Amino acid sequence: MTLIQFLDYAGVAVFAATGALSASRKQLDIVGFAFLAGITGIGGGTLRDVILNVPVFWIGNHTYVLVCVAMAVLVFFTAHMVESRWRLLLWLDAIGLAAFAAMGTAKGLAITGSPVVAIITGMLTATFGGILRDVISGEPSVLLRPEVYVSAAGAGAVAYVLADWFLAAPGMAATIAFATGFIVRGGALWFGWRLSPYKTRPGRSPEEISQQSSRRD
Amino acid sequence: MTLIQFLDYAGVAVFAATGALSASRKQLDIVGFAFLAGITGIGGGTLRDVILNVPVFWIGNHTYVLVCVAMAVLVFFTAHMVESRWRLLLWLDAIGLAAFAAMGTAKGLAITGSPVVAIITGMLTATFGGILRDVISGEPSVLLRPEVYVSAAGAGAVAYVLADWFLAAPGMAATIAFATGFIVRGGALWFGWRLSPYKTRPGRSPEEISQQSSRRD
Amino acid sequence: MTLIQFLDYAGVAVFAATGALSASRKQLDIVGFAFLAGITGIGGGTLRDVILNVPVFWIGNHTYVLVCVAMAVLVFFTAHMVESRWRLLLWLDAIGLAAFAAMGTAKGLAITGSPVVAIITGMLTATFGGILRDVISGEPSVLLRPEVYVSAAGAGAVAYVLADWFLAAPGMAATIAFATGFIVRGGALWFGWRLSPYKTRPGRSPEEISQQSSRRD
Repeated sequence: MTLIQFLDYAGVAVFAATGALSASRKQLDIVGFAFLAGITGIGGGTLRDVILNVPVFWIGNHTYVLVCVAMAVLVFFTAHMVESRWRLLLWLDAIGLAAFAAMGTAKGLAITGSPVVAIITGMLTATFGGILRDVISGEPSVLLRPEVYVSAAGAGAVAYVLADWFLAAPGMAATIAFATGFIVRGGALWFGWRLSPYKTRPGRSPEEISQQSSRRD
Repeated sequence: MTLIQFLDYAGVAVFAATGALSASRKQLDIVGFAFLAGITGIGGGTLRDVILNVPVFWIGNHTYVLVCVAMAVLVFFTAHMVESRWRLLLWLDAIGLAAFAAMGTAKGLAITGSPVVAIITGMLTATFGGILRDVISGEPSVLLRPEVYVSAAGAGAVAYVLADWFLAAPGMAATIAFATGFIVRGGALWFGWRLSPYKTRPGRSPEEISQQSSRRD
Repeated sequence: MTLIQFLDYAGVAVFAATGALSASRKQLDIVGFAFLAGITGIGGGTLRDVILNVPVFWIGNHTYVLVCVAMAVLVFFTAHMVESRWRLLLWLDAIGLAAFAAMGTAKGLAITGSPVVAIITGMLTATFGGILRDVISGEPSVLLRPEVYVSAAGAGAVAYVLADWFLAAPGMAATIAFATGFIVRGGALWFGWRLSPYKTRPGRSPEEISQQSSRRD
C-alpha cells in the first residue's frame, strides 16, 4: 500500500469515527452509527468525484465501506471510555481534514491539471463530510467555530500544489500537504489559533431588523 | 405498468406528499409546496443516479415531476382535514422509505452488480429525500428519532439483495423488500420498536465542554 | 461578452457577496468568507450541471472562482459600512435569483430541449446556492420567509421558456426572464408580496403531538 493509499483509508476511517461519535452524542442505534459514519467518511470524496465527473471511488472498491462500518462498530462499543467525545471528534476531524485536503487536491490535479480546481476539490473533500455530519445530526457546523478550520484545509491544499510544482513526487507532496493541514488545524485546536475575524458586529436576527425599521427603509 | 414501476411512482408520490405536509406546517404558498414536494419526492433518486453516473431518472420522464406537483396541490387543499399532519407525514414517509429502499437497491444492483453498493444506494435513496425535506424546512432530521428508521431502509435493502440472490425475479424481490422495509418502519411507528441505542450519556454542547476544562485538557 | 455571459458572472458575483455577508454575520475569517462566497456563488450552477450530466461550469473557466474570491475580499473590507447587512443580503440574493433562474433555464433547455426540465433546473440553480449558504451558516432558509421567493424563481424560469418559444433569441429571452424574476422578488421584498399561504395552523413540535395523544392514535 502506497503512502497515498494509506492517507486515503486513514482519512475515511477517522472521518467515519467522527460520524460515529456524533451518532453517540445523539444516542442513535448501531445502524444509525454506521449510516452517519459512512456519510461522513465517504461524503467529501463522493462530492469530489461527482464534480470531477469520474466514477465515485467507493463503488469499485468495497474496502472504504467496510472501513466505515468497522469504525462505527468500534466507536459503538468503546465511546463510553472517552472522557470528552466532542474533543476526540475535533481531533480526529483534524486528521481527516488534513488527509482529505491532500487526497482531494491530488485527485483534482491529476484529473484536471488545474491548480485552482485542485485547491477547490481539496478544500471541498476535506470539509464536506463534516458539513454533512453536522447538518444531519443537528450540530452547529464546524465551519462556524472561531478557530481556524477551512483555512487549514486551504493551507494543506496549497501546500500540495506547491510541493507538486517543485518536487513532482506525489507521495512527498501528499506528506507535506498532510503535515501542513494537520499542523495548522492542530495548532488551532491546541493554541486557539485564529485569523483576524471580521469584527464590527455579529448578525442580528431578521426579526430584530424588521422591528427596528419599516420594511421599506 | 409493472409492479416495480408502480412502486417507483408510489414512492415519489408519498415522499412528495410528506414534503407538501412539511410545507403546510411552515405555512408556505402553493409554489413552496410544489418545490418542497419535488425536492423530497425526487431528491433521493437524483442522488442515487448521480452517484451511479446514469442519467437522472426524471429528466427523460416528466411523469415524476407531474406526480410531485399533483401531490402538492392535493395536500394544499386537503391538509386541513387531517387531525395530525405530523403523524400522517411519518406514515407516508414510511411507505416512501420502503418503496425507495426496494427501488434504490434494485437500480444499484442492476447497474453495478455489487450487493454492497446496492444496499448503500438503497439506503441513500430511501433516506435522502427526507433529509433534504427536514434540513430545508428546518425540522429535526427524522434520522435522529429514537425509533428505528435507517435500519428499516437497511432491512428492505438487504431483503432485496437476498431475495434477488435466491429468487431472481425482480418484481418478487421488490415486493419482499417493500414489505420488509414497511413492516420494520411501521412497527417502529406503531409499537415504538427500537434497536438498543448507544446509552452512556447524550452529548454536551461545545460550550459546556470548554467551561468545564481548559482547552488543553 | 454577451448579455448571457454577463448575467452569468453577475449572478455568481452577487450570490458570492451574499455568502460573504452571511460570513460577516457569523464573524468568520477571510478564508471562511471566500469559502462561503464560493459555495453560494457556484453551488446552484454546480448542482444544475451535475444533474444535466455536463462538465461543471467552473472547472474549465477559473474566472468564476476568482470572482467569488474577489467578492469575498471586497465584502470583508466594506461590510461594516452597510447599515443592514441582512437587508443588503436579501436584495443581492434577489438579483442572483433572477440571473440564475434565467441562466439555469437557458442551459437546461439548451441541453435537454425539455421546457419542464428547464424550469426545474432554472429553479434549482436559482435557489440551491442560497439553501447551501443558509444551511452551512445556520440561518433559517430564505425559502421559509413569508414573502414570495421560490415563486419568483419559477416566474423567471417560465418567462424564459415562453420568451424562447415565441421569440427564439436567447439574449432577449434571458433579459425578459431576469426582469420577470427580479420584479417579482423585488416586489416581494419592497411591498411584501405573497401568494395566499396555507393557513389553517402552523406545525406543532413532535413532542407536543405525542404529549397530546397516545402513540397509537
